[in-house]
Amino acid sequence: MDKNLIRDNILKLGSIGKSASGGVNRTFGSEYLKLAQTFVKAYMQEAGMVSWIDSIGNVHGVYKCRDSSAKTILTGSHIDTVQEGGILDGVLGVVAAVECVRELSINKIALKNNIHVIATTGEEGNELGGTVGSRAMMGSINYEEFNFLQKAKKFGLEEAAFKNAILDITDIKCYLELHIEQGNTLDNDKCDIGIVSGIVGLQRYLLKIKGMSNHAGTTMMRYRKDAMVDAARVILTIDSLARAIGHNFVATVGKLEVFPNAVAVIPGLVELVLEFRSQDSRLMELFIEMVKTSVKEFADVDFSLLVKKRPVNCSAKLITCIESVCSKENINYRIMPSGATHDGNAMALKMPIGMLFVPSKGGISHSSLEYTEWDNIYKGVEVLYKTLRKLGESDEDISYKS
Amino acid sequence: MDKNLIRDNILKLGSIGKSASGGVNRTFGSEYLKLAQTFVKAYMQEAGMVSWIDSIGNVHGVYKCRDSSAKTILTGSHIDTVQEGGILDGVLGVVAAVECVRELSINKIALKNNIHVIATTGEEGNELGGTVGSRAMMGSINYEEFNFLQKAKKFGLEEAAFKNAILDITDIKCYLELHIEQGNTLDNDKCDIGIVSGIVGLQRYLLKIKGMSNHAGTTMMRYRKDAMVDAARVILTIDSLARAIGHNFVATVGKLEVFPNAVAVIPGLVELVLEFRSQDSRLMELFIEMVKTSVKEFADVDFSLLVKKRPVNCSAKLITCIESVCSKENINYRIMPSGATHDGNAMALKMPIGMLFVPSKGGISHSSLEYTEWDNIYKGVEVLYKTLRKLGESDEDISYKS
Repeated sequence: MDKNLIRDNILKLGSIGKSASGGVNRTFGSEYLKLAQTFVKAYMQEAGMVSWIDSIGNVHGVYKCRDSSAKTILTGSHIDTVQEGGILDGVLGVVAAVECVRELSINKIALKNNIHVIATTGEEGNELGGTVGSRAMMGSINYEEFNFLQKAKKFGLEEAAFKNAILDITDIKCYLELHIEQGNTLDNDKCDIGIVSGIVGLQRYLLKIKGMSNHAGTTMMRYRKDAMVDAARVILTIDSLARAIGHNFVATVGKLEVFPNAVAVIPGLVELVLEFRSQDSRLMELFIEMVKTSVKEFADVDFSLLVKKRPVNCSAKLITCIESVCSKENINYRIMPSGATHDGNAMALKMPIGMLFVPSKGGISHSSLEYTEWDNIYKGVEVLYKTLRKLGESDEDISYKS
Repeated sequence: MDKNLIRDNILKLGSIGKSASGGVNRTFGSEYLKLAQTFVKAYMQEAGMVSWIDSIGNVHGVYKCRDSSAKTILTGSHIDTVQEGGILDGVLGVVAAVECVRELSINKIALKNNIHVIATTGEEGNELGGTVGSRAMMGSINYEEFNFLQKAKKFGLEEAAFKNAILDITDIKCYLELHIEQGNTLDNDKCDIGIVSGIVGLQRYLLKIKGMSNHAGTTMMRYRKDAMVDAARVILTIDSLARAIGHNFVATVGKLEVFPNAVAVIPGLVELVLEFRSQDSRLMELFIEMVKTSVKEFADVDFSLLVKKRPVNCSAKLITCIESVCSKENINYRIMPSGATHDGNAMALKMPIGMLFVPSKGGISHSSLEYTEWDNIYKGVEVLYKTLRKLGESDEDISYKS
């Protein structure tokens, strides 16, 4: 494969919308994202595909094989970014997929599957909830929820646009995506490839910890019911229970507010958001029950559920396929969950999915400091290419039913 | 003493500036405070005093004895309030002092001391820092500090006004004040009178607890440096060290902010304000050293001093005098520190001070819910009256030098 083309196209596409401070801004609905869509459509064409932009902004490129009844392998990633994001998040998977097709095309390699490359829109968190493009393709958007269509209007999108973007998935074999890790597991372990076992589930609870507000000078320690002190105990309980569970279970209190938040007033109320993620739904239920039971012993806490997303599993057959590629090429890898959400969340409802990670330096992502060594990138593209070939050369049914 | 006059005048003066929600608003600089000053000037006159309002709004009333070379006992309190404060905070001490003078006057009781009643301004926390009126009287305002004169202009006050408000204290014997407790010690202990041993010192530190911000989904527990978790440990360390010290030592984290304060981001920084108060300067120094040493073991914390006020002692002779009055009248009392700041803080730099507390129901203050039983109020005024008589009938020098 042509490393220069990989590098050049990542830099070209990845730099669309770059600000003076070095961050990239191709948020959902932005002009820069539209520019990137036009770029990708032409780029796919130039690499040997038939390409188009669908009714909501997903870019598609198809590379047909000779067999008209062939199954199709879906691959790619997203090209929208967060505000002031990095060059690689999303772009890597799109450029990798296009360059894989170029390699197949140049070498006239005959596969038994079509390759359908996608560059999705609105994957990053936005007013419509993230993974917009992939959810639209999978026909799984709930228009009734959270005023979806009302909000969509701000982006100039009507219900018809979302419906026209639904993809016919009858003949699709699986979805495969290469992405940067966004965590530091691979970087810390000096590991080249992460084979994703699944995308973790996520739950968020609002906790209201109630105390008794009072004068910080005149209220003796023994008479206090300090919501901040109770909140501190709740936070340490959460942290230690999450560590006790192990299995890459993570729990975080990222957002917290104190009332009345005055230097000389004992806090009467603390509100915080507890977020936890795991690949195992049962561990998640166990964890929240343990937290509720433990904190009841020492604090007055109300729990209300804000978000509940179920974990998603990657296809065991795709994991084995990627593993065998890595083993054959002598590339060190590890099987690991994805702590972040991806387009795969939406795809997994309808088809087997597989995901590959390359290391992120220091685990930094959603930042202009996001960085992956070029050698790691080339290795990731190579594993994607060999996996696509291996899959495309076989007629094996990898669907869940098989 | 006439209980009806005490009650009526507390209700009249205390209700100036009462809002629809029941809270009283006579903040420093407000029109309602000016109205209250005019009210108090007339009220003092009517009770038998020569009265005036000084150049910054302190109201003065003097009741002279026959001896032209007599010493003067200063007594009173403040008449400004916090926003939506209670009726009694400040007003009690002013009305009590005026009614004591009325009682002396009606009964033609000849004392060896003059009585000088003050109703101070700007005692409550305000842009000029609280205890403005008493600090001005004592000539202890630092005009260089915190842009004092710049801020004073907003209240229409120039340097000359503060200088003209300086009181000649050459002949002043002591300062005596009756106030509501603002804590719940007396109420909980069913005790009628608190004799204040001293006003606690106060220190405030800004603590910056530094972690490493990262993705809450992809950063495993073992790789985290979570500023929120460290802050929770710091808060519990503060709480347990303060409890271990005992001696009515109090420490509070009332104000806290998390950065970036987002649900899915591990906090990279927590800023909080640690406040602690004690009557013992050595315990305060010991405490902050213990906190610094302990938290260094597990967290990366910057400490910066924001406020440092030394503790103030009440005069032992005044404490004994009030004690003997309570004992004689069979009124149950306790000697206790004041956790809150009072005008006495300013007076104590220049003269012996004594303070009396009456219970606050539930320890509530700075609130429209602030409340003291009328019987407790009458008892407080009675003890103040008997103490003023006892002091005024004696020539004993109670100054620190004696």
